[in-house]
Amino acid sequence: MPQPAAVIIGAGDATGGAIARAFAAEGLTVCVNRRERNTVALETLAQSIRDDGHRARAFPADARDEDAMIALFDQVEVEVGPVEVAVFNIGANVNFPISETTVRVYTKVWEMACLGGFLMGREAAKRMGPRGRGTIIFTGATASLRGGSGFSAFSGAKAALRMLAQSMARELGPQGIHVAHTIIDGAIDTDFIKSRHPDFDTAKAQDLILNPHAIAANYVMLHQQPKSAWTHELDLRPWGERW
Amino acid sequence: MPQPAAVIIGAGDATGGAIARAFAAEGLTVCVNRRERNTVALETLAQSIRDDGHRARAFPADARDEDAMIALFDQVEVEVGPVEVAVFNIGANVNFPISETTVRVYTKVWEMACLGGFLMGREAAKRMGPRGRGTIIFTGATASLRGGSGFSAFSGAKAALRMLAQSMARELGPQGIHVAHTIIDGAIDTDFIKSRHPDFDTAKAQDLILNPHAIAANYVMLHQQPKSAWTHELDLRPWGERW
Amino acid sequence: MPQPAAVIIGAGDATGGAIARAFAAEGLTVCVNRRERNTVALETLAQSIRDDGHRARAFPADARDEDAMIALFDQVEVEVGPVEVAVFNIGANVNFPISETTVRVYTKVWEMACLGGFLMGREAAKRMGPRGRGTIIFTGATASLRGGSGFSAFSGAKAALRMLAQSMARELGPQGIHVAHTIIDGAIDTDFIKSRHPDFDTAKAQDLILNPHAIAANYVMLHQQPKSAWTHELDLRPWGERW
Amino acid sequence: MPQPAAVIIGAGDATGGAIARAFAAEGLTVCVNRRERNTVALETLAQSIRDDGHRARAFPADARDEDAMIALFDQVEVEVGPVEVAVFNIGANVNFPISETTVRVYTKVWEMACLGGFLMGREAAKRMGPRGRGTIIFTGATASLRGGSGFSAFSGAKAALRMLAQSMARELGPQGIHVAHTIIDGAIDTDFIKSRHPDFDTAKAQDLILNPHAIAANYVMLHQQPKSAWTHELDLRPWGERW
Repeated sequence: MPQPAAVIIGAGDATGGAIARAFAAEGLTVCVNRRERNTVALETLAQSIRDDGHRARAFPADARDEDAMIALFDQVEVEVGPVEVAVFNIGANVNFPISETTVRVYTKVWEMACLGGFLMGREAAKRMGPRGRGTIIFTGATASLRGGSGFSAFSGAKAALRMLAQSMARELGPQGIHVAHTIIDGAIDTDFIKSRHPDFDTAKAQDLILNPHAIAANYVMLHQQPKSAWTHELDLRPWGERW
Repeated sequence: MPQPAAVIIGAGDATGGAIARAFAAEGLTVCVNRRERNTVALETLAQSIRDDGHRARAFPADARDEDAMIALFDQVEVEVGPVEVAVFNIGANVNFPISETTVRVYTKVWEMACLGGFLMGREAAKRMGPRGRGTIIFTGATASLRGGSGFSAFSGAKAALRMLAQSMARELGPQGIHVAHTIIDGAIDTDFIKSRHPDFDTAKAQDLILNPHAIAANYVMLHQQPKSAWTHELDLRPWGERW
Repeated sequence: MPQPAAVIIGAGDATGGAIARAFAAEGLTVCVNRRERNTVALETLAQSIRDDGHRARAFPADARDEDAMIALFDQVEVEVGPVEVAVFNIGANVNFPISETTVRVYTKVWEMACLGGFLMGREAAKRMGPRGRGTIIFTGATASLRGGSGFSAFSGAKAALRMLAQSMARELGPQGIHVAHTIIDGAIDTDFIKSRHPDFDTAKAQDLILNPHAIAANYVMLHQQPKSAWTHELDLRPWGERW
Repeated sequence: MPQPAAVIIGAGDATGGAIARAFAAEGLTVCVNRRERNTVALETLAQSIRDDGHRARAFPADARDEDAMIALFDQVEVEVGPVEVAVFNIGANVNFPISETTVRVYTKVWEMACLGGFLMGREAAKRMGPRGRGTIIFTGATASLRGGSGFSAFSGAKAALRMLAQSMARELGPQGIHVAHTIIDGAIDTDFIKSRHPDFDTAKAQDLILNPHAIAANYVMLHQQPKSAWTHELDLRPWGERW
């Protein structure tokens, strides 16, 4: 019997993985995605979720590849069940002076942080539309609201992703599809941040580092909001963060 | 033994009352407030919460009256327990052409929708500050973001309330106090709306009317967010709302 | 024969005075206003403008006083001519921790920075409306967009003033009246700033201090914009300002 | 002797052409650009400006082509003079339901409305940076602030362009380079609009259509602002426009 599926595009070791675990714990079959070069880590994540007694499958694919994304959604709908939740969680935070920003970087950041989101959003919308239900969440950043020195590529891509979410929310809300955008503001508990943050352990012990599981709980909350009161933009930051 | 208290300023029949019920159900002693002229309704609300097996007390007072608000917080802290949650929920939505907006209206809307929020926020902050904990929530509106024709008084007061929330969040967050502002966007299920909305029952049956209990659940959610991932602004609107 | 008048509320020594001079140089009879306690300085300003060969009159009055503002506009329309331009230029920048912000301060800042603007805006709109022409400009601040720690009073008042401008612009634009709001961001060349800025003279020599006459030129520009292309919000900051 | 140059990318028949004429009238040698397929129209524009007694040269090129843009700026600097002004004026307003938005459309809109802006901005910044002077203006739209139903491609591209402008302004302002973004809100007087607007002539006669020359005058004004008071975002709309 088909099970409702949650597609997590960009299910990495921190936020994306935590989001997958959280939706799996709610009974959805999570279909986790990362690029093919991370297939081993992706399979490990899926196995770990299954070891916890939940349902998970790995779908390695490049989120920027239209055919691959169409195939992913087709396969999920046929082999798993109707896509009930779709989460886009790919970032690409870089900083370069404008004169040192190459076309390659500028385009790649947009492709990763925005075009992939468009493909996921469109494919999810195509399938959710006729059913008149579903939740689509885009992971955003403060940079979507404000362009800082050196952030032309990152904040541009994130602002475009936010406008995608807003445009889709206004079109699809009246069709019964909940589209939300999050503003993740602050250092997240990842290996990358840990390796660079001078006082990571102290900060983490004081809850000054965003906990991926706390982020994930908010994504599940957004999905579970009743239709009479939907949130379309949600900011999340640690209590001590300057903003 | 002292019980943590939730002070609800503007605990009317719809949203404010639902917020009070929701925090009471979480085990807080809710201290509900409305103007003295609504004392009977306020006592009825408190009794109804107690009838459900929870703790509630009525504190009739004018939220615009500094002495009354100080006394209210003093009394709650002495007779009930430490204020853990404070919610400001007074609105004052009016629309007049600018040339027909009297000083009386312009000032009164600000006093009700903003000055009362300042008094509650300050008195809550004074008491929560030394304890380094607590949640303060201000009920806001889309008008806080955008001034529409005829809304100089309402959107001005709501924008000032939003800046109060933002200023307090930036000052008090690093002290451990969670200050949040909500954007309530759409018709709420109240007697007033019911009497004016042409197809209220149909709309309500379709979840096109904001459900006060759904709003209230989000306020409790904000209070329960862990310190590593706080939301400072939350919008809520029905799925079919144009925005 | 009646001369078109420009009413400048808050015509102090720096920005307001420069705005008055700029409109006088364009041929309008400037009607400058400050509180009665500054009547000598106000008369000196008016005399100085007349000494330059332009037309100016002093109208000392408290901008927060409804009767005084009505009387001012009545008197200008009778004794000078139709009000063609009205500029509100009163600020009240204070910073206090929320727990040390008194009701007196919170209210006074709102009265000065916002209620006075409402009174001027309304009285100007009443007179310009039937004529279907005129320009109303409110001097705003970055604080109108963002609440910072300690700025609950100032940013609240400025945000309310911005919403007043936006509400009026949306109502009165289609009536032919141009309502604009400015975002003045940075230190202005005033005696007050000069006394507090560590390297004022160096900064000024490098154009890092906002020049009141440059601000004023933009106000005249806004007034002179043709009806097919009006600006409703204009930010102004020195080239080196962080924002 | 080298003449200061103004590069106008997207110098079409309406706004871009008017901007070129306006800067030419200020004494700059305008270097106008459109795609090669519009070379005849571009040459006609340049000739028309020269016929008015000013200096103009046509530089047909695809703004999305990195090599072409580098070559264009190199050629201008060598053959004309230092680039003093650079204006990006390419739009790409389309509306499709999300499920009918192709990757081709989504990408092409971004390439035209944003990537081209990045290339122009970067090449201008490279040359202006060492000189510590120059003005870079990006023509934006209301869609940069708000995603509407069907506008995922257009509002995404425009939001990314706005973040490019803001990022560059924050980086380059302290280097003496003025970067500004405009919000053009309303129908512009173009052949395209004329063919689709039901009451174009009446609306135009009432100044309800944005006049390209009025827009252009504001671009010149931005360029001429003294360093002590720069505007970074300027909205322009007809007096009767709803916003």
